[in-house]
Amino acid sequence: MTQIVASEFTRFGKREEDLVSLSAEACVDIVKKYGDAIDFIVVSNAYSGEYVDVSGLNNLVSTRLSLDSVPSIRVDNTSGSGGSAIVTAKALIESGEANNVLVLGTEKMTGGSTKRSSRIIASLLNDQERRAGLSLPSLAAFMTKAYLKEFNAEREAIAMVAVKNHKNGSMNPYAHFQKPVSLEDVMNSKVIADPLRIFEYCPVSDGAVATLLSSDSTAPSMSEKRVRILSSAISSSSSSVSSRNSLTSIDCVRDSSSLAFRKAGMTPEDMDIAEFHDMATILEIVETEDAGFFRKGEGWKALMSGETEIGGRIPVNTSGGLNSKGHPIGATGVAQAGEIFMQLTGDAGRRQVSGAEKAFAMNMSGFGNSASAIIYEVE
Amino acid sequence: MTQIVASEFTRFGKREEDLVSLSAEACVDIVKKYGDAIDFIVVSNAYSGEYVDVSGLNNLVSTRLSLDSVPSIRVDNTSGSGGSAIVTAKALIESGEANNVLVLGTEKMTGGSTKRSSRIIASLLNDQERRAGLSLPSLAAFMTKAYLKEFNAEREAIAMVAVKNHKNGSMNPYAHFQKPVSLEDVMNSKVIADPLRIFEYCPVSDGAVATLLSSDSTAPSMSEKRVRILSSAISSSSSSVSSRNSLTSIDCVRDSSSLAFRKAGMTPEDMDIAEFHDMATILEIVETEDAGFFRKGEGWKALMSGETEIGGRIPVNTSGGLNSKGHPIGATGVAQAGEIFMQLTGDAGRRQVSGAEKAFAMNMSGFGNSASAIIYEVE
Repeated sequence: MTQIVASEFTRFGKREEDLVSLSAEACVDIVKKYGDAIDFIVVSNAYSGEYVDVSGLNNLVSTRLSLDSVPSIRVDNTSGSGGSAIVTAKALIESGEANNVLVLGTEKMTGGSTKRSSRIIASLLNDQERRAGLSLPSLAAFMTKAYLKEFNAEREAIAMVAVKNHKNGSMNPYAHFQKPVSLEDVMNSKVIADPLRIFEYCPVSDGAVATLLSSDSTAPSMSEKRVRILSSAISSSSSSVSSRNSLTSIDCVRDSSSLAFRKAGMTPEDMDIAEFHDMATILEIVETEDAGFFRKGEGWKALMSGETEIGGRIPVNTSGGLNSKGHPIGATGVAQAGEIFMQLTGDAGRRQVSGAEKAFAMNMSGFGNSASAIIYEVE
Repeated sequence: MTQIVASEFTRFGKREEDLVSLSAEACVDIVKKYGDAIDFIVVSNAYSGEYVDVSGLNNLVSTRLSLDSVPSIRVDNTSGSGGSAIVTAKALIESGEANNVLVLGTEKMTGGSTKRSSRIIASLLNDQERRAGLSLPSLAAFMTKAYLKEFNAEREAIAMVAVKNHKNGSMNPYAHFQKPVSLEDVMNSKVIADPLRIFEYCPVSDGAVATLLSSDSTAPSMSEKRVRILSSAISSSSSSVSSRNSLTSIDCVRDSSSLAFRKAGMTPEDMDIAEFHDMATILEIVETEDAGFFRKGEGWKALMSGETEIGGRIPVNTSGGLNSKGHPIGATGVAQAGEIFMQLTGDAGRRQVSGAEKAFAMNMSGFGNSASAIIYEVE
């Protein structure tokens, strides 16, 4: 099996550094301590060419880190790249191909306009939907309308995701936004795609996170703080959103979650914390339901009753989520693992969930084109 | 261990189809026959965003193939993406994550100017060398000059790589160029980067190749024609070409090859055929030396004496190589596996090497930024 033995973050947000420098910043402490042991590098990055005109990023980063001869690859699955990179690193370790894999999640997205950024990301849509002018923010708005109607949910419940996650983010020194917002702030902020408002979408961020994954045989000699990957699963949905059966449920989230829980011999009730892919507020609610944490149509009630707050029954997105921490595309899935590593080893500072031992992470590609579910337990 | 049980090519060259259609074309026969068994898709592609403004290619392709729920990722390592994708698929299988992995190598590069294409690929160079105006073609020219001087080699020997590979390509129905060229044709063709001429560089091509990789436990039920992956290794060199020790030798080619041979318990002498990464003619000669097939400085003599021809002691690039078959970046490493599958199962038609049982493939990223070596044997 595979364990996380170290994790390091850069501050997320608008960063002046170039992509290679930002990437190296996340890795440098791990390389200083464990450099000789690293025998593979997996770089999670989706859009280095599109945003900053760089390719072969894995090779440029390994050279910058003076890990010239170490094999490396780039793994991409758009917004879900990080989860896919961890699944890949785990396979490299468990097949015996590598013992200690540095997994770097990284993306540089600021520097251009938000419009340009949205256009780059819309390149993952299928051709017809893209030509029809759909974008990921507008799909989230459609989902919100459908959800509110289908489950007679309160509009404020959706906005409360942003309130909760900004509160969590305010306690995360790596988060893009570190200021709480009120329900009024959210509901009075600019409409992006009706009915969703700007505070309900993740910002455009730069950021990088590194984690070191080790095999069971090498992990104990690496660190006393360790988190085990109990299971992982990737599943996909149709890339044609309009041809899906439901607008309020995401097949690949449901399928990957149930498979990961089955592989681990666990249920959502066994989890102490969970990170979900809240690119827009509505997605946190829908995903927590599809992953089996709440019954369909009841995620918004659980949120309103405080169950997903720090201190609640199952804290969700203690990191601040994509909503407040930011969503540097390739970094996000690795950042979920990093937050979970900090939480389960007791290093989450002011946002620490006391006694947290088991965790769940859901990282999604596109608008549910693909999803990875990963279950962790402190060693 | 892992076996190849099927392989399909599209014709390489200038193709009218879009990237998703071209990709699907390579997969359709395999999916028709084995679709229900495929439980993971690894897409080798480096530049979908840069060339054709598409991201999330793995999800778009799986949807097009009606394999909606099958997990998929994209693996990129620039020109070496294919070899890295095969190593990744092998790890997914040998770790138990998957049983039957569809590995698709695909790239669409035509449609813009050659200048635009060169600029896109130059984005893999390190910043200083890129700003100095270096490109991959010019690096190959520097290597040629250094090689000719250091080993007192004949200029014509380098050009003979193109003659041999065009001859092989003329017998490959999937190759971009299917016409033999004479030494005079090559030596009289346009100078691209002195002393190398246009026939000595791979063309800009579109193309896609699919292979199906299966575990030892499932492979026998899939096909009677099977090729086993005996070993694989990836290694890297500095991305800063000017800081390397030698211009006539590539560390990562040497290191990955020797590791792959050691893992397989074999030597280059055991191989019956080999595919090398001849982005430029000189590279075939340098790589065959670094991989241990010939002594340093003697690869050009082996070529001149016909040892690497079909019918010679160790036929190299029976497919036509990148030089004649074409080099759709993400497809190339998978195409090497596909050619080897055809050769070792006796399906290589007019270019068949009789009795070939063992094969070696070298797939390189950038200008030796990274390399994968894979050793195959017919089952």
